Parts: sequence; C-alpha cells; structure tokens
Amino acid sequence: MSDSFAREITRRGFITKVGQGVMAANFAGPLLKGAAAVQVPDPPGKKLGWAIVGLGSLAINQILPAFAKCEKSKVVALVSGHLDKANKLALRYGVDPKNIYNYQNYDTIKDNPEVDIIYIALPNGMHAEYSVRGHQAGKHVLSEKPMANTPAECKQMVDTARKANRKLMVAYRCRYEPYNQEAIRMAQRQELGPMKVILADHGFNIGDPTQWRLNKTLAGGGSLMDIGIYSLQAARYLTGEEPTEINAMMYTTPGDVRFKEVEETINFQLRFPSGILANCTSSYGYSGQNRYRVVTTKGWFELEPATQYSGLRMYVHHDNITEERLLPVRDHFALEMDHLSACVMENKDPLTPGEEGLRDLTIMTGIYEAARSGKTVKL
Amino acid sequence: MSDSFAREITRRGFITKVGQGVMAANFAGPLLKGAAAVQVPDPPGKKLGWAIVGLGSLAINQILPAFAKCEKSKVVALVSGHLDKANKLALRYGVDPKNIYNYQNYDTIKDNPEVDIIYIALPNGMHAEYSVRGHQAGKHVLSEKPMANTPAECKQMVDTARKANRKLMVAYRCRYEPYNQEAIRMAQRQELGPMKVILADHGFNIGDPTQWRLNKTLAGGGSLMDIGIYSLQAARYLTGEEPTEINAMMYTTPGDVRFKEVEETINFQLRFPSGILANCTSSYGYSGQNRYRVVTTKGWFELEPATQYSGLRMYVHHDNITEERLLPVRDHFALEMDHLSACVMENKDPLTPGEEGLRDLTIMTGIYEAARSGKTVKL
Repeated sequence: MSDSFAREITRRGFITKVGQGVMAANFAGPLLKGAAAVQVPDPPGKKLGWAIVGLGSLAINQILPAFAKCEKSKVVALVSGHLDKANKLALRYGVDPKNIYNYQNYDTIKDNPEVDIIYIALPNGMHAEYSVRGHQAGKHVLSEKPMANTPAECKQMVDTARKANRKLMVAYRCRYEPYNQEAIRMAQRQELGPMKVILADHGFNIGDPTQWRLNKTLAGGGSLMDIGIYSLQAARYLTGEEPTEINAMMYTTPGDVRFKEVEETINFQLRFPSGILANCTSSYGYSGQNRYRVVTTKGWFELEPATQYSGLRMYVHHDNITEERLLPVRDHFALEMDHLSACVMENKDPLTPGEEGLRDLTIMTGIYEAARSGKTVKL
Repeated sequence: MSDSFAREITRRGFITKVGQGVMAANFAGPLLKGAAAVQVPDPPGKKLGWAIVGLGSLAINQILPAFAKCEKSKVVALVSGHLDKANKLALRYGVDPKNIYNYQNYDTIKDNPEVDIIYIALPNGMHAEYSVRGHQAGKHVLSEKPMANTPAECKQMVDTARKANRKLMVAYRCRYEPYNQEAIRMAQRQELGPMKVILADHGFNIGDPTQWRLNKTLAGGGSLMDIGIYSLQAARYLTGEEPTEINAMMYTTPGDVRFKEVEETINFQLRFPSGILANCTSSYGYSGQNRYRVVTTKGWFELEPATQYSGLRMYVHHDNITEERLLPVRDHFALEMDHLSACVMENKDPLTPGEEGLRDLTIMTGIYEAARSGKTVKL
C-alpha cells in the first residue's frame, strides 16, 4: 500500500466520523481520534510464491524478514546446502518442509506450482547457473547484484530468460526506495540546474579473510563487484546515461591476507555523453563510506548514507542553504520483491531487468581494464 | 600571539587581582571581573614592512585587512597600475603616498628601506616577472598561488631568489591555519589508523567571462590552476608524500562563453608511494565545492568547508560516532604573512618555499597531460 493511499484512507475515515457524530466528538474527541488513527489494513490481494536460494546473511537478516512488509510476495520455499539451517528458517517463516530444496534437487522445483519466483542470493559466481536452472524450471528469477561474474554469464542469463519467456530482474534495491528515487527525480527534472559532477564513494573494511567475497571464483572480483557497483549504479541512474569513457586506479595492500585473489581499492572516473563526469571510489580496505553527491550548476544534493539497507539521509543545498529532506522509510527488499511480483502478475518488464545487470558488468570489465592498462577505456 | 599565550596572560591577570583586592572584590566583583577580561595587549615587537603588488579583490578584501591581525608584519607600500585605487587604499591603511609605486617604477622599490617583503597578488601569469624583479630589488617575496604558469617560470623564480639570497614563499595559507594543521596532524599521527583514500573537491561557478582567470595568458589554465590546486595541495600535505601516477578527465561545456581559453572541469586521480589513492575534482562550472575527506582504516575525518578564507568546519568519524571538532578561528592571511616575516627575521626557510610551488606546477602539468593523452602519467 503506498503512503499516499494510506493517507487517503485516514482522511476519508476522519471526515466520515466528523460527519456522523459532531456532538459525540465534543465529549469523546480524544478517544475517537485514537480509534480513527488505527487502521485495520485490507486483506492482501493475491501474493506470488517465492523461493529463496542461498541462506546466507542477506537471506537471513534482510530478505526473509522483508516478506512481512510485502503486499504481493510470500516466501514458500527455501533452497540451501544446509538442511538444518533451512529447517530452522522454515519453522520461523512458516515454510512447508516439503518445499525445502538442496542444490541437487533444485531443478525439481519446476514441479512445484506454489513457487512463482526464485530469488538468487548465492555468491556472485553461482548466479548464472542458478538463474539459468531456475528459468529452465519455468520460474521467474530475481538475481542479487552483481548479476554474475562476467558479461558472458549475464548474456546467457538474459538469453535463457527470453527463451523460457520468464522475467529476469536484478536486485538493485535502491531503484525501488524513496530516497534514491527522489535523487533520481531531482536529477532528471534538473531541479538545481544541469548536473556537472557526480561524486560517489562506497566501501568498507572487510573482515573474515575466508569469506566467499574474497574468493575470485565465487565473487568475480573484489570491492568493485560487491560495493563499488553502488557508485557505478548511482552514476548511471542519476544521469540516466551510459558512460563513454573510463579511467581507473587500483591499489591492494601487499601482504594483506584478505586480498590474495581480489582487489582492495579501485577508484574510477566516468564520462557521460552530456558531459557529466563522475569520480567514484570503491574499497574493501577503508572505513565505511556510503554516499554520493550530485553537483549541479546551482547547488548540490547528497545522500549519506546513500545505499545502505536503512537509515538513508538526504541533504539539498541551494542559495547558500543546506536542508535535510526527510522521506518515507521503506523496506528496500519488500519493495523490490513486490515490484517483480507485480511485473509477473501484470506481465510487465521490471525496472531493472537482466539487460541492466549486463550493462554494469560490461562497464566493470572496462574499469578493471582501465586500471590494468593505465589507459582510458572507451565504451 | 598564540591562543595559549593569551589564555596564560588572562589567568595571571586574574590571579594578581584576586591577591591584591579580595575585600574590594566582595563589593565590586562584577566590575572587577569585567576589567580583568579586557587585556591591553603588549606593544608589538618589530614589524617588517610589506609592499602589496596588485590591488585586486584579494588584496582589497583579504590581504590589506589582515594586517590588523599581524604581529610581525605591516603594510608600508602599494604597487598598482591604478593610482586612484592605490591612493584610496593608502589613505585607509595609513600608507605613505611616497610609497605608492606603479609597474613602471616598481624596480625603484630597491631604494626603499621601509620595504622588506613583497606580496605578489597579481594574475598568475605575472607572478614570475614581479617575483624576479622583486628579488632583483633585494626584497623577500611572497607569491600568491599558483606560483606561476609553468614549472619553468617557477624554476626561474627559485633561482633568482637563491642568487639574491632572499626568501621566496608561496601563499599556501591553509598550511598556516588551525583546521588544516589539525587535519595534517591527525593524518601524520595516524590517529584513525593508516590513510587509504583522500577525496578532495574544489570549485565554484565562475562569473564574469571577461575576468583574467579565464584568460590563458594571465591565468595559465582554468579551474585547476586557481581552485583545483587546493585539492592537489590537500592530497600532498595530508599524505606528506609526492604522487607517482596521475589519471585525469577534463570537460568544458561547448559554447560556454566563459571557457574559450581555459578548461571548466578537470578531475584527477593520484597514486602515492605508500599506496594512498586520491580522487579529486576541480571545476569552474559547478556550484561551490570546498571539502576534503580522509578515509582511513578506522574512520574518516573531513573538512567542509576545507580551504575557504573563513568558516572552516571539521568532522571526525570513528567507532560509529561523528563529532564536530572546533578549533581556533584565525586570519589565514595574517598567519602566513607573519610566518614569512618571522622567517626573514630569524633567517629560516618558510614552510612553503618556492620549491613547493614548483612541485605543484609540475604535477598540474602532468594532470593536464593525463587528461589530454588519456594515459596514466608517471612522475
């Protein structure tokens, strides 16, 4: 239910009460007001059934709890290599034990009519295989970002989805939540004049050296694949353009046990056709950065944090005043899952289809090439 | 006078009064306290005589008023092509009319024993000539930044100073004021762990298309020479290192009447020997940016504004807390002028000698080359 819809109901409820009982309100005003404020939501409409593939921290801490906020999506199946974990989570979220799959019998999900959509929350290097197998099982697929390790894998995923006539969406949750949507709206409407420079910084100090994010085969790369992609996405969705040139500079601390296979820091510059330039950073070695600032001819606007799961803040500067802009706080995962459910129900294309993930992988491949070659990469 | 010295005097003054008149204080306490708070400063020690060359907005709005805050420097001469302007300013600041020079008789300043130091506040392209002529006149020289248009000019200035056995300093005022000094101290002491990435953004939306800053001959270049140099300086003084590699990307809006001769925006990346990377921007086309952030392994610290004439603010983030750090507010110009006066009196080398300006010009030449060639420039 949208916020504006919720407000509309509240207003109508209040007006009805006032019309029916002005005299009563004089005596019981406070009580009546309290009653009017508590709205019993309508029963949900049809919800599509989701299977979650990969029960890591993202699934446990973000995706599964988010179903409580969904209007069009419910969790009905779990796919995991760890039966104990799957059983515990099935009990917590009311998933029928018969709908627990492992990676061997995953393909039999095609025979389960309760499952409409599969959410791939596996390590990056496994997205392609499990997306393709999901589509071949006749299901729609939401893949976590980055979509895959390589553009070739992305193409395979897009092709398979097309042949199966099923949806493929990449989980770019920021595109579905109010703060980033407001930034995109301001950028596109040129509310502070034309954009000139975009500054985007994303990274954190990564911990456990044994985690899959530091394994080249499973992660596809280092900070860029996991967190720098937010800087890239921001530059692209704010401009609404595709970059034509890339510069990059990379650094990995020698001897740091975390970075035997993947890069630590990779900073990159992008040129967009309209002349907008972006200066971005991405790191697994610095203390948490999560921000972007769009500098225009007349001011700037900034999100910091910009792309975290929650707690986003927006600042707008113009005419020598900096304002904080407060927006509705929504669950990003619920919004993106309901978006794909709605697309499936209404047979519409998702806002962030497989082709969008492929674009990022192509550009990220260019970023690595620019860093390695010391030359501007032209796309 | 340092702040700690001022505090010491106040404390001593208060103790003396209490010791001499405890009884009186019982009756006249409020009055006495008021009297104790007003300290009559000691008469200044010896002040060196300064000549200001170039009476533009910097001289009028910043340099000349700053002498009121100086302990070791006084304005005694003015050099200008506009006699009316010089006469008016001489009246305001008590400069003897016989000490007003123009660009033709500037060299006769050698015969004026009142002038010890010359402050070159001319357009960039004139710094070299007026610095060289100043040294040849036997005076010490403070040159505004950028030191000159080219490394060759900088070398000529350094050589002439050496031959004349006179001081040459570049007016990098941020090195002399408390906020940037605190940032340097934190960086060098690694208070938040080793530095990883430096983010620095400096620029503004430049106005009048006819001003000298947009004239290649007078300015040497565009935003980089005037304002991007602050991003470069910050990266250098925070790391205490010299960059070894440069990437850059440049953009100038086609048809913008302001940018017929010089660049609008130039963003650059620097690699330092310790592995620190800097991502910097410089623009004459975006709304005022004036900030840097140093990201370390354990947190970050930031100045925003970082290098404006006044109003600097510092934020420090560690352990999930962001604090504002408040520091003494000082006049940057008074501090830098008194520094050079002290160096002359004590025959010491200034903190930012000509060699420091030469380093920036060499790097800026590399930044332009990287942007033009689309290749990493190695220094």
